[in-house]
Amino acid sequence: MCMHKIKSKYNIFKQRAHIIIYGTSTKAGRYFDLILLGLILLSVLLVMMETVTEFDLKYHDELVLLEWIITGFFTIEYFLRIISINRPWKYIFSFYGNIDLLAILPMYLSFFFIGTSILSVVRSLRLLRLFKILNHPQFTSQSVQLKKAINASRGKIVVFIYFVLIITIIIGALMYVVEGKQSGFTSIPASIYWTIVTLTTVGYGDISPVTPLGQFIASFVMILGYGIIAVPTGIVTAEIAKTVQNLSHHSQTPCKDCGSEDYPNNANFCPNCGNSF
Amino acid sequence: MCMHKIKSKYNIFKQRAHIIIYGTSTKAGRYFDLILLGLILLSVLLVMMETVTEFDLKYHDELVLLEWIITGFFTIEYFLRIISINRPWKYIFSFYGNIDLLAILPMYLSFFFIGTSILSVVRSLRLLRLFKILNHPQFTSQSVQLKKAINASRGKIVVFIYFVLIITIIIGALMYVVEGKQSGFTSIPASIYWTIVTLTTVGYGDISPVTPLGQFIASFVMILGYGIIAVPTGIVTAEIAKTVQNLSHHSQTPCKDCGSEDYPNNANFCPNCGNSF
Amino acid sequence: MCMHKIKSKYNIFKQRAHIIIYGTSTKAGRYFDLILLGLILLSVLLVMMETVTEFDLKYHDELVLLEWIITGFFTIEYFLRIISINRPWKYIFSFYGNIDLLAILPMYLSFFFIGTSILSVVRSLRLLRLFKILNHPQFTSQSVQLKKAINASRGKIVVFIYFVLIITIIIGALMYVVEGKQSGFTSIPASIYWTIVTLTTVGYGDISPVTPLGQFIASFVMILGYGIIAVPTGIVTAEIAKTVQNLSHHSQTPCKDCGSEDYPNNANFCPNCGNSF
Amino acid sequence: MCMHKIKSKYNIFKQRAHIIIYGTSTKAGRYFDLILLGLILLSVLLVMMETVTEFDLKYHDELVLLEWIITGFFTIEYFLRIISINRPWKYIFSFYGNIDLLAILPMYLSFFFIGTSILSVVRSLRLLRLFKILNHPQFTSQSVQLKKAINASRGKIVVFIYFVLIITIIIGALMYVVEGKQSGFTSIPASIYWTIVTLTTVGYGDISPVTPLGQFIASFVMILGYGIIAVPTGIVTAEIAKTVQNLSHHSQTPCKDCGSEDYPNNANFCPNCGNSF
Repeated sequence: MCMHKIKSKYNIFKQRAHIIIYGTSTKAGRYFDLILLGLILLSVLLVMMETVTEFDLKYHDELVLLEWIITGFFTIEYFLRIISINRPWKYIFSFYGNIDLLAILPMYLSFFFIGTSILSVVRSLRLLRLFKILNHPQFTSQSVQLKKAINASRGKIVVFIYFVLIITIIIGALMYVVEGKQSGFTSIPASIYWTIVTLTTVGYGDISPVTPLGQFIASFVMILGYGIIAVPTGIVTAEIAKTVQNLSHHSQTPCKDCGSEDYPNNANFCPNCGNSF
Repeated sequence: MCMHKIKSKYNIFKQRAHIIIYGTSTKAGRYFDLILLGLILLSVLLVMMETVTEFDLKYHDELVLLEWIITGFFTIEYFLRIISINRPWKYIFSFYGNIDLLAILPMYLSFFFIGTSILSVVRSLRLLRLFKILNHPQFTSQSVQLKKAINASRGKIVVFIYFVLIITIIIGALMYVVEGKQSGFTSIPASIYWTIVTLTTVGYGDISPVTPLGQFIASFVMILGYGIIAVPTGIVTAEIAKTVQNLSHHSQTPCKDCGSEDYPNNANFCPNCGNSF
Repeated sequence: MCMHKIKSKYNIFKQRAHIIIYGTSTKAGRYFDLILLGLILLSVLLVMMETVTEFDLKYHDELVLLEWIITGFFTIEYFLRIISINRPWKYIFSFYGNIDLLAILPMYLSFFFIGTSILSVVRSLRLLRLFKILNHPQFTSQSVQLKKAINASRGKIVVFIYFVLIITIIIGALMYVVEGKQSGFTSIPASIYWTIVTLTTVGYGDISPVTPLGQFIASFVMILGYGIIAVPTGIVTAEIAKTVQNLSHHSQTPCKDCGSEDYPNNANFCPNCGNSF
Repeated sequence: MCMHKIKSKYNIFKQRAHIIIYGTSTKAGRYFDLILLGLILLSVLLVMMETVTEFDLKYHDELVLLEWIITGFFTIEYFLRIISINRPWKYIFSFYGNIDLLAILPMYLSFFFIGTSILSVVRSLRLLRLFKILNHPQFTSQSVQLKKAINASRGKIVVFIYFVLIITIIIGALMYVVEGKQSGFTSIPASIYWTIVTLTTVGYGDISPVTPLGQFIASFVMILGYGIIAVPTGIVTAEIAKTVQNLSHHSQTPCKDCGSEDYPNNANFCPNCGNSF
């Protein structure tokens, strides 16, 4: 009887935890999400701070304390997620399950091994959970539109990058021969790195051509990059323009018979139900 | 009687000041605006000149004199603005009211404190008043169109920047681990700074990867940036294209017979019903 | 009688010179244009070569000789242009007339003054004549389209650059205060220069922020520049897209009655003559 | 009789070789293509590795051995291509025929001459064969669309680059005069190189203006570059948008009754005449 009561209470606890952790429809669920996001941001901020030497020297103990508190919270969250779900293994081996484990593991490993604290950098991967916020209603339509446009342009962009990579290797090899080792083009991979730096118009200047011929070829590569940068932009723009226009199609008055809003501007009949306008 | 006369004169003065300062419909009002804009530009130019050491050494006294003259004018303008408006507090606590005060305060504070002259840099904020010129008729339609397009694309751009920032932090953390302190990636914030410099294709070269793996990841980031730059461009372009097309559509009066608005600008007959224009 | 003959011959000579120099319809006129373009390119190439120290040391005499030959030809061309035109003063004071004179003057001045040879650099302005080649039939339609699109977008781009310049000054003043003299931000003009270098994603790296706050603001400026670069692209793209689409309008079968090709795709009547399709 | 048999066998061998090497319809032909692509990639990788000094010192012998194996394979492939084709000379003097020969020649020349191994870099040109992969069905439609859009925009882009080059030379000459030799602008060609580096927003920083006037002109060039980069993007985008729109238009079968093609993809009735699909 008593055992039964505990089990029943545990089940209620599990259900509540499930609603709070996985759900977004209740107030508690939404608050949990917000707090989690805040803690993720805080933990990433802590990791950042620790890498700043001056800051770390001053506030090392405070940083470590805060890290342990956050790690504690994340550990509890991790086990609650496992407990409150029906198929725990599915979560554990899922993408986010792995990240959640990786985010807490380094702190505990630092007991046994020295220098693993740098691994706490992987905690920044938990930031990917922030993408889930994009599923909230006020962002959905915007991010769905963007996703659609990007997906539609993926094929063309793959072809384009394929083309760019081949060009990059050939130009890299050419510049290696022309410029040689004395001016930073120490190897073909370094030359290819330079070509990418130039073609994408980043232009660090850590490697730059010094011979007249090298500078001439570099000028050519830059003008090429100038023209080439137009291509991905053109692809994505065309797709977004299509999405935006399709959307403005939908701002029409719906058909009185079937409610369809997807018809050309000058339609005489509804293309869905054949109703005459 | 005399008092009444003075008050009446004062009221007329207030009215005139209001028309000149706040109005743009009278000739005096427009001249005032132009003179004010000129003085703002001049004052900003003065502040600039003072920061150029060689110039300041030569013409220090002249610069200071001119600054006092302009500050005097701005002070008078500030009090006239307060006097001539019905609800002075609303102006004083408004955005432009604060800026107008901040633009004159530093000069007077320099009596009491040394080194506040650098604060006169805030005077450059008065340049924001120059945006008001965009409300002049010859610019209105252009800036309204731009504003519309930018507002329409704001939602998507927020989602996009959110996405870029998360990616930036993760890549920054990764590069910190890969490159380490010896090659400029001294902390995660510095690494994130480098990632932004690279993703936006600015590429200062003050920090640049030296390890082969770091250069490989950097190449990947650059090509990513190449693709990513296409997205905001695509968003804004699509919206501007819509505005431009809507404009060229709706600027026509619809046909009186059938209401069609879809005809060339120089049409003599409605292409839909054949009605003569 | 003899005088008359000479004058008549001179008139014929003037007419021929006019046809050859100003005309493009005859074979000789087109050949003259081509030879002139070739000589302009050659003269610019010579000026370039002279500035390359190693090259100048080796071939100084040959370069000078060639320059004199070309200057001779340009001088003859200049006087022929004056002689063969009806209103010579109009040419002399025209834009191209001034450039043509400036292109030959430095060589003659080098007799009297030393060091004016550097002025022969102005000869490169004659390159502007190369734009006339764009009026040749095979380029006309392309350059007309481009000009149309660029003209249509000029208004918006002026508003945009106005906005960018104000932002640039404010950010420049801010960075001057934040970074200070020790990290390259020696004056507000230098700071503004840095802001433009960053906003336009050029990023030389000759000046770059070193303080954390400066780097944070710089990151913000870069992301702003990322968004801002989308605007002019969007403006121009929208206008070019409109031009291209208008053009594809014209690929319709012309109206049988009036030959007009400018009507909506779904027109029932010709908007020009009212003819029923 | 025996001779006849051998010749017959040889002919069968030739036919098979032709099908495998030049064909893509049989399984063997497709495998051959894949293996060839793999070997080309491997050979390019080997050449790259050899130029990395640390790697070459460690694994020199292994790299050379592998190179010989691949050169052997390429040699066999080269002769099979000659043997199995009907008009061998056409292949030998074709573009790919030349590249195939150039890819194997350097290794054999290294017997007689020292230092020719660097020429094995030309092997990277064989990467161009990778473009053939773009003819495979899954890429065809994407690359055809891209090619169409790029071809259509070629005319405008040529006009644009022509314009940019003239501007570049004039600005280069101007900056040479303004900045002079002491700040990196050693000659007009170097100045032009700097102008291209700046206009394309690459911005190495190996040459950068130091005089205030030079920095002012540079700022102007950058803002010009900002506006100019919009033009090729606009051209390509407009063409891609047209291709994308045409595609989504013409991929529909016209209505059997009225021939209208302007209806949503999932239409049940023609929006023009009400005909049921």
